[in-house]
Amino acid sequence: MSITDAVKRVLVGRRLSSAQLGETLLPKRIALPIFASDALSSVAYAPDEILITLSLAGMAGFGFSLPIGLAVAAVLLVVVASYRQTVHAYPSGGGDYEVVTTNLGPTGGLVVASALLVDYVLTVAVSVSSGVQNAKAMLPFISGHEGEVAAVVIVLIMAVNLRGVRDSGGIFAVPTYLFMAGVAVMVIWGLVQIFVLGHPLTASTAGYTVVGTQQYEPLVGLGMVALLARTFSSGCAALTGVEAISNGVPNFRKPKSKNAATTLLLLGTIAVSMLLGILVLARLAGVKMIDVSAGSYFMSSTGQRITGEPTTVMGQLARAVFYPGFPLGFYFLITMTMVILFLAANTAFNGFPTLGSILSRDGWLPRQLHTRGDRLAYSNGILTLATGAVVLVLVFDASVTMLIQMYVVGVFISFTLSQIGMLRHWTRKLKTQTDPATRRQMKHSRVINSIGMVMTGVVLIIVVVSKFIHGAWLALLAMVVIFWLMRQIHRHYEQVRQEVGTIGPSDRALPSRVRAVVMVSALNKPTVKAIQFAKATQPSELEAVTVAVDPDETAEVVRAWQADDLSVPLKVIDSPFRQVTQPFLDYVRELISENPRDIVCVYIPEYVVGHWWEQLLHNQTALLISTRLHFMKGVMVTSVPYQLKSSRELADRYRQRTLAGRR
Amino acid sequence: MSITDAVKRVLVGRRLSSAQLGETLLPKRIALPIFASDALSSVAYAPDEILITLSLAGMAGFGFSLPIGLAVAAVLLVVVASYRQTVHAYPSGGGDYEVVTTNLGPTGGLVVASALLVDYVLTVAVSVSSGVQNAKAMLPFISGHEGEVAAVVIVLIMAVNLRGVRDSGGIFAVPTYLFMAGVAVMVIWGLVQIFVLGHPLTASTAGYTVVGTQQYEPLVGLGMVALLARTFSSGCAALTGVEAISNGVPNFRKPKSKNAATTLLLLGTIAVSMLLGILVLARLAGVKMIDVSAGSYFMSSTGQRITGEPTTVMGQLARAVFYPGFPLGFYFLITMTMVILFLAANTAFNGFPTLGSILSRDGWLPRQLHTRGDRLAYSNGILTLATGAVVLVLVFDASVTMLIQMYVVGVFISFTLSQIGMLRHWTRKLKTQTDPATRRQMKHSRVINSIGMVMTGVVLIIVVVSKFIHGAWLALLAMVVIFWLMRQIHRHYEQVRQEVGTIGPSDRALPSRVRAVVMVSALNKPTVKAIQFAKATQPSELEAVTVAVDPDETAEVVRAWQADDLSVPLKVIDSPFRQVTQPFLDYVRELISENPRDIVCVYIPEYVVGHWWEQLLHNQTALLISTRLHFMKGVMVTSVPYQLKSSRELADRYRQRTLAGRR
Repeated sequence: MSITDAVKRVLVGRRLSSAQLGETLLPKRIALPIFASDALSSVAYAPDEILITLSLAGMAGFGFSLPIGLAVAAVLLVVVASYRQTVHAYPSGGGDYEVVTTNLGPTGGLVVASALLVDYVLTVAVSVSSGVQNAKAMLPFISGHEGEVAAVVIVLIMAVNLRGVRDSGGIFAVPTYLFMAGVAVMVIWGLVQIFVLGHPLTASTAGYTVVGTQQYEPLVGLGMVALLARTFSSGCAALTGVEAISNGVPNFRKPKSKNAATTLLLLGTIAVSMLLGILVLARLAGVKMIDVSAGSYFMSSTGQRITGEPTTVMGQLARAVFYPGFPLGFYFLITMTMVILFLAANTAFNGFPTLGSILSRDGWLPRQLHTRGDRLAYSNGILTLATGAVVLVLVFDASVTMLIQMYVVGVFISFTLSQIGMLRHWTRKLKTQTDPATRRQMKHSRVINSIGMVMTGVVLIIVVVSKFIHGAWLALLAMVVIFWLMRQIHRHYEQVRQEVGTIGPSDRALPSRVRAVVMVSALNKPTVKAIQFAKATQPSELEAVTVAVDPDETAEVVRAWQADDLSVPLKVIDSPFRQVTQPFLDYVRELISENPRDIVCVYIPEYVVGHWWEQLLHNQTALLISTRLHFMKGVMVTSVPYQLKSSRELADRYRQRTLAGRR
Repeated sequence: MSITDAVKRVLVGRRLSSAQLGETLLPKRIALPIFASDALSSVAYAPDEILITLSLAGMAGFGFSLPIGLAVAAVLLVVVASYRQTVHAYPSGGGDYEVVTTNLGPTGGLVVASALLVDYVLTVAVSVSSGVQNAKAMLPFISGHEGEVAAVVIVLIMAVNLRGVRDSGGIFAVPTYLFMAGVAVMVIWGLVQIFVLGHPLTASTAGYTVVGTQQYEPLVGLGMVALLARTFSSGCAALTGVEAISNGVPNFRKPKSKNAATTLLLLGTIAVSMLLGILVLARLAGVKMIDVSAGSYFMSSTGQRITGEPTTVMGQLARAVFYPGFPLGFYFLITMTMVILFLAANTAFNGFPTLGSILSRDGWLPRQLHTRGDRLAYSNGILTLATGAVVLVLVFDASVTMLIQMYVVGVFISFTLSQIGMLRHWTRKLKTQTDPATRRQMKHSRVINSIGMVMTGVVLIIVVVSKFIHGAWLALLAMVVIFWLMRQIHRHYEQVRQEVGTIGPSDRALPSRVRAVVMVSALNKPTVKAIQFAKATQPSELEAVTVAVDPDETAEVVRAWQADDLSVPLKVIDSPFRQVTQPFLDYVRELISENPRDIVCVYIPEYVVGHWWEQLLHNQTALLISTRLHFMKGVMVTSVPYQLKSSRELADRYRQRTLAGRR
């Protein structure tokens, strides 16, 4: 067992087989942190974005932070209530994609899938960027390199996932609880200082005045509506990740649905408390933010313009609360904030390939992504996700404020469609349900989902309208492109399925004879092996064929052939243009046309090597010929591998990996 | 026949088969332009480089242009005399690589080959750059975009060659003769104007004074020696391409060697006349050049510094001679200069893959480059060459002055080694030769080659010493890397050859039984075809195998299998980790270990598609499995292709290409 394997086993535990999966049903206390890191981590940036957007209206704007916070909290609770209905209706784990596909048909499902795929990329970009921004409170030297640092973090998370961390529940629980505890201690201790000890908190930006932009200062009329709408949209980032539990119902202990619904309620309550707690404390401590790119700025009490950006709300609050008495509290909370944000990014690295696998099963993505366990399939998804996120953090320099303009759209598309789907679900169920109690229950659920639908639909419209020109258009464009691509892939598979589906009598016709042709370029061990293997299949006819490219070489082969006693005739094909491929293909084509009911089996000796550069030095002509032979009907191509010494090491490595996987 | 084919046929004529090659022996009047474009085109930049380097010594420097020109001419004539011996000794076409390999062994040959490969890249870069620089006399707007324009020209030449211009002799003759005639007319008409009509020529730079650099002005002592050595080295660029005829002896009409030797003498005489004619006329017309990057500059008669670069010597002379009376002459000559320079680059596009093919035959380069006619093999060489040249012109901004520092080294390495080889050749021949007349002849040749060897050896030392820090080091480094690479490739092939060479009795053991396994993922036409083909080979045992990844899909396959009557048992392999690859490989490995004397033949149904993106949607798991199966002894992998409709178009295109090639 290698060191990596050992570390992995300690961190992750044994790999779970399908059968074993049943053993690991989760109690609520473990399920909560597993499914909550994404949703809870967003309280690390949602307050920032609310204050940053409000800063455009100058000092007057910050007065709206609590009302906006309450609006976001209201939406969050409605969404939680709606998804509690979903977990009851789909105890098998009804993700939004499943719910929508089942109730609104495949096109709706595909829209949700496109939105979710884009959102996974943004989750990684936003979470890691926010983690890096928060880290600046502790490690100020990061300033100016945010994009690069975020990219490195994403690559590290990717590397961990490529190594194959399949089930990372255990390590999630601890930091999630520590983060929750840290925020709770900070908020409570801050409030105690202010209201019990009478010791007012002062954030580092408390003494500054914020000057907004001409567009929004003073804050009146349409401008006000627009700005508050944008602020609310950014704040709704706090809702991302709420739907995660609905995917995970089967992993809960019995009664699954009930436990999942309880956990969901718990999650909602905690998220709302944290969000509002942070916003209240920020207001009390005088925390202010500015939007550097949009042009709001700080002014000192003496009327001088302050350059430079403030740290995050979490950073300012933690410093105000824990300094100077307990600096360790500050470091602890910032570290936990970073960790939970990176864990949130990590969940996307699990979710993206899983969704890819489901989409692949339904024929929307290349088939080979379906087989979950295969390293290769997951690797593709992980690489795609990481590449997208790295590009985003580099282009937008890890600015959460810019990235968040694209975020949330996808989440609310999927929320809204999911609620519409649930409505259909209950309406359909009600048609066949006769038991009055159950009917009452269903009608109740339908009302809740209707409220959810209206609420999320309205938020979706607000988000799209208020953010469209600020970046949402890019996210929507990406979704449309992905949607179109998946449609094309599906159409292709559908066409192929129809083409190959109906097996007719002509397909069952047994070929009359097998004519074997062994491709020869020299008389050596691989050739002899190919000949012997071909002989073993006892074909109706067997001949060796060589193409006369170089007269000397050909003479040498013929001489060696005659000297040996392989009892197989060697045919020399003339090659007037000094090619190999074409004359050989022509020869095979003639063989087929001589007797179309025969099949021709071409045996190609192949060198198996251990390094990619050795591969470049061998088999290239064989590869070309084999590719072209595939276009001829009635031909099979058999490669007879000859393992060179250099291949042994690689074969051993493959075998070891297999054994390691089995333990 | 497509339009491209038609154009090609008009331009290039039919493709020649090995047998047909005899029909196209060249008369001297066609052979000269075919082999001369490279050598003659260098008179378009050699005079420039002589004057540019001398400009570092200010006005005093230009006095040395004619002596340097005479020295270059002397070397050129000696080299021509030496190669006249080579064409007699190697009527089969003794390129430098062949001569050196035969007489000095493979390591020497490999040194020459490395030098030539690098030089081909530089030929393209230098010729195209000079063409672009000359074009500026006519198209001044190119200024500032030389690198990009040169890159585009190289890509165009590459594209033409990729389309498959294999024999471009015919189109070479006309512009080469026109270029020669143009230069002759210009020189003669210029001299007539000066000496007969008494009408002095004034180049555009005649009125300027050139200010050199501190290092070389005044021109005395070691500095003088160093500068003259560098000037001479740059002037020796005029010699590149002289050896081309020695490669082409077999293409001459009989008596081949005599005709080739005569053509070589003709080439030498013409090149020397053109070089000296241009240098004399430049001196008379007061043409001056400056080295912008090294710091020499023009000063007007009023003592003001002139900014901007002058046009090429050819451009200045053509303008002085033909303006104002006959501007068409100017345009004609500049155009022909451009064309012949681009043709010179084009010869490298023929030479590079040809040398690659020879090196491949001798096992120094990947084997698949050997088969001359195959499009793919040549394409790789053409792409490599073009990429190298494009990088060079972009990095050095198509500056001939900078590129030429790297040039010439390779040429003289190959000249010198070739002469040493010829010396050995004659010495060896003299050992067995008894006829006094022949012996005298041979001794005579040996003296000429000795002179050639000493002369080229001295020039090589001068070139390396005077240019090393200016860029020759880069060319030498490239040669060393290529040399090392080719050695590694050769070592690999040698190892493999030994590994597979000796066929022992165990290699001849006939496997006892063939167990056939058909890989199944669904019951459809491709699967049925694979089953029927496998049945046709009458294996000892035959079974279909499917891996149970998805319970629903597996149940569906089993159900369909039972409903059908394929009379082949279907085995379902359990896959606890939801993988396909590993359980299947494990199963095959077990089959082999059960009875190692059997062979297992795995039949994989494969979809044949028409587009690369369709390829991504199919066969990926099959490809992975097939690759891994190759590492197991006793396994053959048979792919049974199933041609989807979309593949037909591509198959048709392949067939048409074949038919077009045959005409």
